[in-house]
Amino acid sequence: MYSFTPIGRIRSCFRERFGTPRQPGLAPDARAVLDLFPPADKNETIRGLDVFSHIWLIFVFHDTMKYGWRPTVRPPRMGGNRRTGVFATRSNYRPNPLGLSAVRLNGIRRDAGGLHLDLSDIDILDGTPVLDIKPCLPWTDNPKNVRAAFAAPEATLSVSFSARAEAALLQHPEGGRFRRLIIQVLGMDPRPAYRRDSHDPDRRHGIRLMDRDVRFQVTESQTAEVTDLLPLPDKGT
Amino acid sequence: MYSFTPIGRIRSCFRERFGTPRQPGLAPDARAVLDLFPPADKNETIRGLDVFSHIWLIFVFHDTMKYGWRPTVRPPRMGGNRRTGVFATRSNYRPNPLGLSAVRLNGIRRDAGGLHLDLSDIDILDGTPVLDIKPCLPWTDNPKNVRAAFAAPEATLSVSFSARAEAALLQHPEGGRFRRLIIQVLGMDPRPAYRRDSHDPDRRHGIRLMDRDVRFQVTESQTAEVTDLLPLPDKGT
Repeated sequence: MYSFTPIGRIRSCFRERFGTPRQPGLAPDARAVLDLFPPADKNETIRGLDVFSHIWLIFVFHDTMKYGWRPTVRPPRMGGNRRTGVFATRSNYRPNPLGLSAVRLNGIRRDAGGLHLDLSDIDILDGTPVLDIKPCLPWTDNPKNVRAAFAAPEATLSVSFSARAEAALLQHPEGGRFRRLIIQVLGMDPRPAYRRDSHDPDRRHGIRLMDRDVRFQVTESQTAEVTDLLPLPDKGT
Repeated sequence: MYSFTPIGRIRSCFRERFGTPRQPGLAPDARAVLDLFPPADKNETIRGLDVFSHIWLIFVFHDTMKYGWRPTVRPPRMGGNRRTGVFATRSNYRPNPLGLSAVRLNGIRRDAGGLHLDLSDIDILDGTPVLDIKPCLPWTDNPKNVRAAFAAPEATLSVSFSARAEAALLQHPEGGRFRRLIIQVLGMDPRPAYRRDSHDPDRRHGIRLMDRDVRFQVTESQTAEVTDLLPLPDKGT
């Protein structure tokens, strides 16, 4: 048995598991800050990191680890009805609840609160403990002739905004990015697979994203209509 | 603090740290077997994994973790004389001694001893505990427009074999692959940076590789001459 202590924690626009993309790169407007903890928060530990555009984060699936794991999972990409071995998936229900993401490093800042890495293109939940940072090295991280079982996910829903939602975005200090982020996140259809075919356009959904509860419903014409953006008690990134 | 229990252990051709490549992909003839432990050794856990050509391994730098870490390290790629932040390197002396490698998956076998994954293109030391296996997914593991600080390493030494070494390879059951592996490993010049400039052609080196102690010396013309392949007490992969 090996014990690890987090070197930092993520503050992310993704405030709950529902709606958090299943891979990085699907929501380029998704941002996060990695706050480093002592003793990893010295200026020395990140010396030279600024010349890398992307970093690997190894993190803990802290929010789902309490549920344990099973030998097989039902990946949403397979429609949620086919059982696949846990090691053949990126599921967060794993024997060791470790997550792995290549994310974009936009900047490194020090302020009174410590040392912070500004990230984007993320798929990591708010509050996630991070165990390690490694630079992305294309020649070793991209083996030649990789063959994978399935292709990249594609957006499956159109996204529209009600007049109330548009008004809320106009007043939001980061309205332009927030709008793009909502389109990226809802376009992937975050609903669980068993809800997608139920054809219940009256069902309302909510995703806590940035500092809002994004309320939406899915029409029969496969459009996610954002009805409201309700304030959340505390502010995300 | 989070505790993790290995899901398996590596049996590798690299029997000691000296000579183990610093990245996967540098020694295509390097092979290893990942032996899975209960309860991760069920047929179910790897169901569907065979359609992936490459997998990520997250593992523990078990052999060096006892030395702890420092905020900066001296990467061999920089000549060993420039200090770089630990998070800007793939050094194994890290706050959390976690390793990450994309390796080739050649096959999956079950025998009386359990469930085994046959791997190649590896850079992992014999006896390494593995914490997680994830499929390589090109669209999420290769972000676009990656910028890295330094380029892929290149072979810097020629490799030659003495008549005694050639005779030993001829008698070896995997002599052809062993020969290629030696060229791949010695070509990268495994000597520590402070020894490379010392011009001491009489100095003998040994690397425990597969089931042999590979003895060599480096000539003034930058050739690694393999003098002998001495048997080791137990057999590697």
